Amino acid sequence: MRTEFEMIESLKHSFNLKRIGDDCAVLPKDAYTDLVVTADMLVEDVDFRLHWATAEQIGHKSLAVSLSDVAAMGGRPMWALVSIAVPDRLWNSGFVDRFFAGWHSIAAEFDVELVGGDISGSPNSLVIDSVVGGEVKKGKAILRSGAKVGDSIYVSGSLGGAAGGLYILESTGNVASLDTEMVLRQLQPSPHVLLANSLVSLYVLSSMVDISDGLSSDLGHICRSSNVGARIYAERIPIDSDLADILDPKSALQKALNGGEDFELLFTSSNPNISLNEQFRITKIGEITERNESVKIVIDGKSCELSSGGFQHF
Amino acid sequence: MRTEFEMIESLKHSFNLKRIGDDCAVLPKDAYTDLVVTADMLVEDVDFRLHWATAEQIGHKSLAVSLSDVAAMGGRPMWALVSIAVPDRLWNSGFVDRFFAGWHSIAAEFDVELVGGDISGSPNSLVIDSVVGGEVKKGKAILRSGAKVGDSIYVSGSLGGAAGGLYILESTGNVASLDTEMVLRQLQPSPHVLLANSLVSLYVLSSMVDISDGLSSDLGHICRSSNVGARIYAERIPIDSDLADILDPKSALQKALNGGEDFELLFTSSNPNISLNEQFRITKIGEITERNESVKIVIDGKSCELSSGGFQHF
Repeated sequence: MRTEFEMIESLKHSFNLKRIGDDCAVLPKDAYTDLVVTADMLVEDVDFRLHWATAEQIGHKSLAVSLSDVAAMGGRPMWALVSIAVPDRLWNSGFVDRFFAGWHSIAAEFDVELVGGDISGSPNSLVIDSVVGGEVKKGKAILRSGAKVGDSIYVSGSLGGAAGGLYILESTGNVASLDTEMVLRQLQPSPHVLLANSLVSLYVLSSMVDISDGLSSDLGHICRSSNVGARIYAERIPIDSDLADILDPKSALQKALNGGEDFELLFTSSNPNISLNEQFRITKIGEITERNESVKIVIDGKSCELSSGGFQHF
Repeated sequence: MRTEFEMIESLKHSFNLKRIGDDCAVLPKDAYTDLVVTADMLVEDVDFRLHWATAEQIGHKSLAVSLSDVAAMGGRPMWALVSIAVPDRLWNSGFVDRFFAGWHSIAAEFDVELVGGDISGSPNSLVIDSVVGGEVKKGKAILRSGAKVGDSIYVSGSLGGAAGGLYILESTGNVASLDTEMVLRQLQPSPHVLLANSLVSLYVLSSMVDISDGLSSDLGHICRSSNVGARIYAERIPIDSDLADILDPKSALQKALNGGEDFELLFTSSNPNISLNEQFRITKIGEITERNESVKIVIDGKSCELSSGGFQHF
């Protein structure tokens, strides 16, 4: 069975789609500015569960994931469209109003205007498509394809918290008393728009993505797009400190590497000394290598292959 | 139960959404150009049926409806995003490739580039969100809100054909031998981009929409937005000639007034003599009146109230 990634690769090839493959498409706007635009579809029981998340949280997350994509291009989000297919059971429950209350709360935080969208009935599942448009200085969008051999690899914040939250939700199946930070990271993530904008105003970055699929997958995306390899160091991975309370060190590292939806930023730069103020934690986790060295993780001094979604020979 | 229209009106009011309510949002692009952008969500068994339409037709229609929205603003479509939630039963059937083949066929016709989107699994229904961005001369987008008392009301082409096609599909339940023009209008509509662009280059229009909900509903949208009334004449309505073969005159008129998805253009102008070359049929069907005269249809010399989705006292 083809994965979503393989399906997109096949379509890119079949239809010669040159602008597909980054967090956002980059389109010319005016003499000084490019438009960046992204779409994210969230499907009930695939991307969220109604018995885990409130309507407000689903509204929040549906916008947050798209804001994060704009941030990962170094862009400033400006406007949004939301399309939503609503099953009968939710139509008169107040769900839609509460969804948009959550949506608008984070939209107001980032000064994003709802300019359009669509509302439809749905025979079964709730489906949301979130589209955000933003701006970036002309030619300055940070792509996945710019990483160079010798560049340092950085991540923001800490990793594995959202996966830890999902683990808690799946283990207990009940959200009532689970108002922990990790559960909130899973249900109500914060997009790093300010962090990304600070980074691109202070430093020259060669590539950037947001960590939505997991560090191992998203680093793979950068390496494939940039035609390079990478080496990262297990002991430098900023594992979410709360994960240690619920998992052994090996499992915690697995979640930090492969758990998605942290929406931290993963970026590369020829500058080996990038840091921001205390508000934003930045960790250098490795360096870009030649393509034929593939993507490696060094664990206890031993180099292992790091494939998307997992590492081998641990 | 609130309708979709009421839901959107309620959200507009709750969140003070000023750009919602036209076929497209209009956003500033550069000194000479505005960006228009629209989203349309198509849901299986709400907007289409898989046993009626081919995958290629569903791909075609999902883009066509959004191209029609851009056309109705007087805009030129430029780029598109497609998000699609695909149930397991379709994932490995080749459906997605055939969907995009249909999508790309019409995209190529209108020189529209696929720049992004999303593909997700879906537990039940196929859901598609189609987003199209286009351009229009600065300040020249044709809104719903510009109709003035005394303006003439025009429609392009003929009406009721798509509803006739739906009637045939629903009556027979089998598409195999139904390759008629009306069925094709329903399953594979043509957006009037060239027609709209010709109109706005030759004439000053005061308002325009595409007829997606039906003439009665869409004329109501113009009247509400423009704060005016309207009077149209039954004998002038360009009823699809094929409808006469399957329906009595009264039922045919009902379909022409209330059947949606013809994607013809409905527009107003202070110019009482708008016509184009033979390729594009334009019919003057009435005139804009004072608001307190509401929306009327004159049938056999008698004036009747025309409400959205139907006319009274026929």
